[in-house]
Amino acid sequence: MNVPDPSLTPFFAPKGIAVIGASSNPVKLGYGLARNLVQSNYQGMVHFVNPRGGSLLGRPMYPGIALVPDPVDLAILLIPAGAIPDALRECGARGLGAAVIASGGFRETGAQGAALEAECLQIARQHGMRLLGPNCIGLLDTHLPLDATFLPPPGPPPGDVAFISHSGAICAAVIDWARGQGFGLSRLVSLGNQVDVNETDVLSALAADPFTRVLTLYLEGVSDGRRFVEEAGRVARQKPVVALKVGRYASGQRAVASHTGALAGQENAFNAAFRRAGVIRADTSEEMFDWARALAWCPPPSGRAMAVLTDAGGPGVTAADALEANGLRLARLEDQTLEALRASLPPAASLHNPVDMLASASPEQYAGCLSILLADSGVDGVLVILPPPPMYTAGAVAKALIPVIHSAEKPVIIALMGERLIQEAVEHFRAARVPEYRFPERAASALAILAQRAEFLQRRQDPPERFDGADAESVGALIQEYTAAHPPHSSVMLSQAAAQRLMGAYGIPIPPAGLADTPQEAARLAQQLGFPVALKIASEDISHKSDIGGVLLNLTDAQAVMRGFRTVMENAQKALPAASLQGVQVQPMMPSGQDVIIGAVQDPQFGALVMFGSGGVEVEGLKDVAFSLAPLTRLEADHLLESTWAGRKLRGYRDIPAGDRQAVIEAVLRLAQMAADHPQLAEIEINPLRVLPDGGGVLALDVRARLQFQAETGMN
Amino acid sequence: MNVPDPSLTPFFAPKGIAVIGASSNPVKLGYGLARNLVQSNYQGMVHFVNPRGGSLLGRPMYPGIALVPDPVDLAILLIPAGAIPDALRECGARGLGAAVIASGGFRETGAQGAALEAECLQIARQHGMRLLGPNCIGLLDTHLPLDATFLPPPGPPPGDVAFISHSGAICAAVIDWARGQGFGLSRLVSLGNQVDVNETDVLSALAADPFTRVLTLYLEGVSDGRRFVEEAGRVARQKPVVALKVGRYASGQRAVASHTGALAGQENAFNAAFRRAGVIRADTSEEMFDWARALAWCPPPSGRAMAVLTDAGGPGVTAADALEANGLRLARLEDQTLEALRASLPPAASLHNPVDMLASASPEQYAGCLSILLADSGVDGVLVILPPPPMYTAGAVAKALIPVIHSAEKPVIIALMGERLIQEAVEHFRAARVPEYRFPERAASALAILAQRAEFLQRRQDPPERFDGADAESVGALIQEYTAAHPPHSSVMLSQAAAQRLMGAYGIPIPPAGLADTPQEAARLAQQLGFPVALKIASEDISHKSDIGGVLLNLTDAQAVMRGFRTVMENAQKALPAASLQGVQVQPMMPSGQDVIIGAVQDPQFGALVMFGSGGVEVEGLKDVAFSLAPLTRLEADHLLESTWAGRKLRGYRDIPAGDRQAVIEAVLRLAQMAADHPQLAEIEINPLRVLPDGGGVLALDVRARLQFQAETGMN
Repeated sequence: MNVPDPSLTPFFAPKGIAVIGASSNPVKLGYGLARNLVQSNYQGMVHFVNPRGGSLLGRPMYPGIALVPDPVDLAILLIPAGAIPDALRECGARGLGAAVIASGGFRETGAQGAALEAECLQIARQHGMRLLGPNCIGLLDTHLPLDATFLPPPGPPPGDVAFISHSGAICAAVIDWARGQGFGLSRLVSLGNQVDVNETDVLSALAADPFTRVLTLYLEGVSDGRRFVEEAGRVARQKPVVALKVGRYASGQRAVASHTGALAGQENAFNAAFRRAGVIRADTSEEMFDWARALAWCPPPSGRAMAVLTDAGGPGVTAADALEANGLRLARLEDQTLEALRASLPPAASLHNPVDMLASASPEQYAGCLSILLADSGVDGVLVILPPPPMYTAGAVAKALIPVIHSAEKPVIIALMGERLIQEAVEHFRAARVPEYRFPERAASALAILAQRAEFLQRRQDPPERFDGADAESVGALIQEYTAAHPPHSSVMLSQAAAQRLMGAYGIPIPPAGLADTPQEAARLAQQLGFPVALKIASEDISHKSDIGGVLLNLTDAQAVMRGFRTVMENAQKALPAASLQGVQVQPMMPSGQDVIIGAVQDPQFGALVMFGSGGVEVEGLKDVAFSLAPLTRLEADHLLESTWAGRKLRGYRDIPAGDRQAVIEAVLRLAQMAADHPQLAEIEINPLRVLPDGGGVLALDVRARLQFQAETGMN
Repeated sequence: MNVPDPSLTPFFAPKGIAVIGASSNPVKLGYGLARNLVQSNYQGMVHFVNPRGGSLLGRPMYPGIALVPDPVDLAILLIPAGAIPDALRECGARGLGAAVIASGGFRETGAQGAALEAECLQIARQHGMRLLGPNCIGLLDTHLPLDATFLPPPGPPPGDVAFISHSGAICAAVIDWARGQGFGLSRLVSLGNQVDVNETDVLSALAADPFTRVLTLYLEGVSDGRRFVEEAGRVARQKPVVALKVGRYASGQRAVASHTGALAGQENAFNAAFRRAGVIRADTSEEMFDWARALAWCPPPSGRAMAVLTDAGGPGVTAADALEANGLRLARLEDQTLEALRASLPPAASLHNPVDMLASASPEQYAGCLSILLADSGVDGVLVILPPPPMYTAGAVAKALIPVIHSAEKPVIIALMGERLIQEAVEHFRAARVPEYRFPERAASALAILAQRAEFLQRRQDPPERFDGADAESVGALIQEYTAAHPPHSSVMLSQAAAQRLMGAYGIPIPPAGLADTPQEAARLAQQLGFPVALKIASEDISHKSDIGGVLLNLTDAQAVMRGFRTVMENAQKALPAASLQGVQVQPMMPSGQDVIIGAVQDPQFGALVMFGSGGVEVEGLKDVAFSLAPLTRLEADHLLESTWAGRKLRGYRDIPAGDRQAVIEAVLRLAQMAADHPQLAEIEINPLRVLPDGGGVLALDVRARLQFQAETGMN
């Protein structure tokens, strides 16, 4: 068995390509594919294979791949599914490194197709061959150039944006739409059923392409969540990655035993994964390509302070709104900027940001004012608004602006409003690779993404925090005990004592407590722990302890504790004579503080996921929670807290005193590490985690944990 | 003084128009206006006025309006601002009913311009003349036809959408963009500085136009909030109104003394006003016109269950996501629908919603399957996805679909994906007035707006609830007392006693309590009120009563109350010897229950605004609040509760028992009515309102109210 090529070189730089299933019938896809290959002006060898022989587009049709002359390292198969395995064997024997199976009729049609697909993979593995597809439309590279798709021409113009798609159908629409929007593609890969090469595999291959400046992904899921995060994270440091993840609302309800489990879902997991990797998540296809153009063409801003340059008040206000709505802010202009603007503009112009030059603005004024704004050290980028100018053409304004934009080291985005009257300007900007959008809102959104990207690149890259004192072994041993005692595939809640052992092993503080068998022992324990204390009946059989008089609070001396011991035991015996009583638990009364929730679950795609937020019984109603992949860095834990009200409140709010924020971060890091270390720990939740005033630390007042023996079936 | 014409007839159906400032110089706006009027094929009389005389476009230029022959009822003025008052006087003398002042140079330039503007209004009023502008681009009607703007041609094609704009600059862009998007306008009105005719005035005039099916508004504010709500509410019952309100983030911070005041802001007020009026609020210009087309062209759906018809899986998933994200749901198809689909489609097709016909779908299959879906009684509307089909043209599919769509009584929206390959289909759909959008997300958003509109029309129209027992007079008297005792323009917090009188006057329950002067009286009161009781020192000089030992809780007998009286008085005297003590307040201990907040403020634009939500000290952090205009109907109060977690929780949640929801609604209605009745009541807030278990009612535990003597200056 040969080792498959991880570089995917034969797909993206083949020396020779054989089309197996080339057809001289123009209505067949096998004809379209052959035609595209030849017309794409691909410089390597192109061979056609068809058992009937003959010729096509001036080239011979070889009856079999074995007869094709060198060089040939990539096959594209467009023959009925049933004939694919044999064809693949021949390709393997011929020494090809890669094959694209464009044909359908595999897993998407049912069990038989799935078996056929598995057979194909096995054959490919035997020959060290990589497979793209099946059931895909192929791939193309506009710079090589190479068009190995069967889509109707014309293909996309050359560009900077690579597109990777789980949907073949959307490729044709995207190519056509991109052309109309005036941007090209560098490469396009249709992944189909992903029997071998998947979305993660192609990331590096596309990032390595010098013509690709931005990667865009149309994802229906990911094959291996953690690998995707790792690989996308590496790629995103080099080039922006924008993803549209569809299938959001496909409800994947699972049985859960915690608030964390109920609130964690595919969407929170994907958001956490994308955030971790630095992948920018788009909500709509339009957004994805709007952003891709800006990311491909603009320098990164060094901050979020933007200027708006306009010749009309209304759109200026709209732009200011849109900037703020997108988390940007209006720059405060320096005095010398205002002076320079004043010298260039009529007295009635509005000099303060948004800068309104008035409707009389000439191309020279547009260009001059833009230069002035770009020179202001407090301006990180400029949004230029250009409705059809009443006295000049938008095209003339565009021509004046472009040199200024090209020489700037700050991003400039154009809101070019209208349609026919601005067409010439559209063409100028597109040719100059200056992003233009029809409305200020879309332009502002693109500027915001540039700021987000710049911040991502500036962010420190710490390794996830590891707590060295964690006793993973004893947790492993505990899980082992439980595993031995329960049937496989079952699920069980840990006892309170076991849950507390987990806390101990990972250094999350729990309230001190002791179990007393006699009134005297209870009093001794109370003395040790410090008065006042609470007493609680200890019994696994009694769940609502306070309802049956099994809890006494605020006992202040030994006498009261001894009396209390007897009361609690009697109440329990009276209420539930059959319950087995382990004694009485003695705890000091808890100091007051803020209560939060921390939880972790195992996501089927991305593994351990940690949650933080507002605790108590209303967690699922308030939904004031946030998620992160586990383990996480201290900085990420800090962001996690900050993104909830519960976390912000820890700094104190009105008469609520500040809590020990650092201790909360510590607890989050430790719980996350525990979940990451032990995938059998399906759910664990501390609710509430009592946060004491600053320096006082935290206490896990209640811990619930569920073990799942053998991972739940991965897919959602 | 004549009475101005409220119908605005002279603007929209003038018999003759005089252009004052018509110019034969083609670079002047006065030329553009004259040319547009003539070229627009306006059937009434067109007269040109210019003191220099001569002729223009084959017509004479009269030296003055007095010399213009009949009929003439509308003047359009495009002369320097300083010359406008005299020209208006002449128009008035000539008996004209209306004038458009297109010229700038008024309020927008400063105090002098504002004075000039006021003078113009005064002249117009003297002559019973209505004014549009100044500083506007005019108006047009594509059906009359009439183009009284000076914008460069071509004007918009005739259409169904009226556009009213506070920004003149955006009009040119919108006209141009609409043309490119394939929809026309019915009327366009540029309002300029609104010295007379404002956004509210034109609503009815445009709604009365038979060619206008939808009204769109670009608003920078409203002139008279309550009148706008009333008028827009009336118009919206007849025709959809979509508004883009800009200037959202223009921060208008005011001094406030309550959570309600801090959270209420221009945006919440506008949202509440639009909701009350049934005005659909768009977030972006693109959204506004996307929605307008669907509202103009589609029948209303009778529910939110939608079907997706596609020839490709990927976009089908995107569409399903987008439907759910927009609050719609995927219809569950009936068995006979599935059978009919099965009979029409290949075996591998996916019959369940989204219905994926596969890439081979023919125009006939598209049309046939659409008919089948429309016949399903569980389907309220259909989103059809049409990427460039691999085997047919999109144009052929469009031609097959259009007759089915036209004969349907349910909305059908098209996601037509691509650009050049779908151009023919675009033309067919536009000509047939079928809304098409480039992406499934925008199509889904349009469908959702249709559902929202249908629900608005179905909603019961109750008058706001009035609580007949309200004693508005005694509140008026109380406000009078305060007003007499305080300087004008000042602001004062009501005393606790006065705030409680407000509660009594509007029937909002407060905890029973009594003031005791002696230990014996305290004990008697406690007996009356029922044990256990709480004692509180009564003193206006002591704000944090519990801090100084001025509060005792849970006293269970007369002895304890008498002892407690002495303790509380002593503690107060010890802590604050100078404080004047009114005695001790005796209250029964409050039963437990859920706590919420209700508040009301006076919004400078829309008047009384009521808030409901999660109470306590964290109101501004949790932001679990919602607003409504006051007064409100019982149904609106119900919606107000439902839109917050605090309100939903009143039905009970986990171990939190249900609260008396009806009593909360009652309290909201009463507080809203109080605020609406008394505009001097700048802020009033009940926090917390204790909600007792069902049937137990509510108790206003703490009430804060602020009076403002003389309304705050209206604008924000």
